[in-house]
Amino acid sequence: MTTTHAYAATDAQSKLAPFEFQRRELREHDVHIEVLFCGVCHSDLHQARNEWKNTMYPVVPGHEIVGRVTKVGPQVSKYKAGDLVGVGCLVDSCRTCASCQEGLEQYCENGFVGTYNGNERETGAVTYGGYSTQLVVDEAFVLRVPENLDPAGVAPLLCAGITTYSPLRTWGAGPGKKVGIVGLGGLGHMGVKLAHAMGAHVVLFTTSPSKIDDAKRLGADEVVISKNQAEMDAHANSFDLVVNTVAAQHDLNPFINLLKRDGTLTLVGAPEHDHPSPQVFNLIMKRRRLAGSLIGGIAETQEMLDFCGKHGITSDIEMIPMQKINEAYERMLKSDVKYRFVIDLDSLRK
Amino acid sequence: MTTTHAYAATDAQSKLAPFEFQRRELREHDVHIEVLFCGVCHSDLHQARNEWKNTMYPVVPGHEIVGRVTKVGPQVSKYKAGDLVGVGCLVDSCRTCASCQEGLEQYCENGFVGTYNGNERETGAVTYGGYSTQLVVDEAFVLRVPENLDPAGVAPLLCAGITTYSPLRTWGAGPGKKVGIVGLGGLGHMGVKLAHAMGAHVVLFTTSPSKIDDAKRLGADEVVISKNQAEMDAHANSFDLVVNTVAAQHDLNPFINLLKRDGTLTLVGAPEHDHPSPQVFNLIMKRRRLAGSLIGGIAETQEMLDFCGKHGITSDIEMIPMQKINEAYERMLKSDVKYRFVIDLDSLRK
Repeated sequence: MTTTHAYAATDAQSKLAPFEFQRRELREHDVHIEVLFCGVCHSDLHQARNEWKNTMYPVVPGHEIVGRVTKVGPQVSKYKAGDLVGVGCLVDSCRTCASCQEGLEQYCENGFVGTYNGNERETGAVTYGGYSTQLVVDEAFVLRVPENLDPAGVAPLLCAGITTYSPLRTWGAGPGKKVGIVGLGGLGHMGVKLAHAMGAHVVLFTTSPSKIDDAKRLGADEVVISKNQAEMDAHANSFDLVVNTVAAQHDLNPFINLLKRDGTLTLVGAPEHDHPSPQVFNLIMKRRRLAGSLIGGIAETQEMLDFCGKHGITSDIEMIPMQKINEAYERMLKSDVKYRFVIDLDSLRK
Repeated sequence: MTTTHAYAATDAQSKLAPFEFQRRELREHDVHIEVLFCGVCHSDLHQARNEWKNTMYPVVPGHEIVGRVTKVGPQVSKYKAGDLVGVGCLVDSCRTCASCQEGLEQYCENGFVGTYNGNERETGAVTYGGYSTQLVVDEAFVLRVPENLDPAGVAPLLCAGITTYSPLRTWGAGPGKKVGIVGLGGLGHMGVKLAHAMGAHVVLFTTSPSKIDDAKRLGADEVVISKNQAEMDAHANSFDLVVNTVAAQHDLNPFINLLKRDGTLTLVGAPEHDHPSPQVFNLIMKRRRLAGSLIGGIAETQEMLDFCGKHGITSDIEMIPMQKINEAYERMLKSDVKYRFVIDLDSLRK
């Protein structure tokens, strides 16, 4: 194997900086991937700065990965050199528990192996993510990328895309359903595109009037300024599903009140400090549900990529070279990106 | 009509005392009922003392009512004099909204009419409940009571019974499912009996070791002392459904952690002060759901009564004369009742 060039954080305070390492030798079912593009997820920043208190340094972030297969292990049957492939948040799981058997590896009862900051099952070695030129992953956790899509715009589908696609599917977004998306960031803009393509009536909730035009361009049928009580009241008791992409601590009750009977508010982001307590009365009076949802399994991620291929959906992105990652983090903290930074890994191969 | 003898609260501070009034003349679809028994629900006390800040005085509580039909209006087709019938929490609803059309009158989009402290749709008159010798109700909101059951023990089924039956049915309690019931009071003891009869594996959660034997007698397969962390840990990630009957403010996280992937914690009681915020992370990691549920519709209440008739299920009760109601309220506040007070209305007819 050749040396893998990457960017890593070596402690919670330092900026990301160049880092070199060797990927593992190909096992029987392994796929070797030349990384082309990697999306920049807010989780990357949380982990780089140890904000979840579980970072193992050095950490090479990145779990929105698109690349080309260059070599495969002797038992690989699904992929061959030249294939355009993706890798998301998971690179392994126990494969035997009830959740894994049902294709829901993200809920693996024994804990999935994260694409970075995880521990390989066989060796315990810490996993390194997609801010790197090469990747080695078991074929069972590699996705096929539709060739008709822009591969850079596909990268964010592997986390932002599947994180919104999965709850939309689980709670039945489609024709005749009214679906709310809260927040127009990396996740929210994908939620709007996907829910629209599924045929739902899509309403985007934002605190920023400046986002109205963009939300409509992305596919929202309506945009509601969530600070405007009259606008919120006009939509009360009318939603089948609201997917809340805002991870910052906020009051959930205004969004629970949007739900019709048996409607669900699904949270896809965990705030650092929990949201204030929702009013039980608001749940009881209309048999409403508050739920959480975590990324998606491998089968559903492939389904999402195929869906995006069919509907011509990719993420809106701003491309950066690897060397600009620290600046991108600062801009991401200010929500100054439409709507996802994607790293061009060629910048590390020069 | 003859004078109706009742007990009413005239303000938030006074004890309940004798009160007389006239029931309305029979309308075309009305059923006149001689009240035999009325269960004592915690809501009665909340309303008598204006703890929900919406009491219209004088208030005649009582919505767990069993009686005999004595007369019917000219258009009544479902009931005739002599029938044993029940009336629960609802005596009317708009009958036209989506929820009413689906037989879920408890979620009437235009607000259902409560059996007491409600306003009649036609006249706006305040409704008076079952702490009274007679009742007049539209046949559409009257239930048929199985003749094989003890009618006094049936009374609490009309609120405590349906409040637990409905979420058990909604979330699929039955053979092969593991169902938790939190709290062994009026609602909890019905939840244990009903979930057991549905064929689920039933685990009762209580803070009181003194309740273990009784819970097992009522049908619990296991009893867990919820303060015992080791016992709680042994049941983590294993429940399909947990029905939480405890209305006092408490931490929901230990009960959310009991749920397996896609499991639901359903709240059937609204605390005066909301529970502390549940941890979003605990919802997201297993796609768990927190929900509320409110009593049940008329069709489902009839289904529940028929189910109880088939399985020989009634509430465990302590019978009291109307004159002991104030004492019963004080004992109820101390949970000193197994498991429901039921008023014998003959005590007002002497």
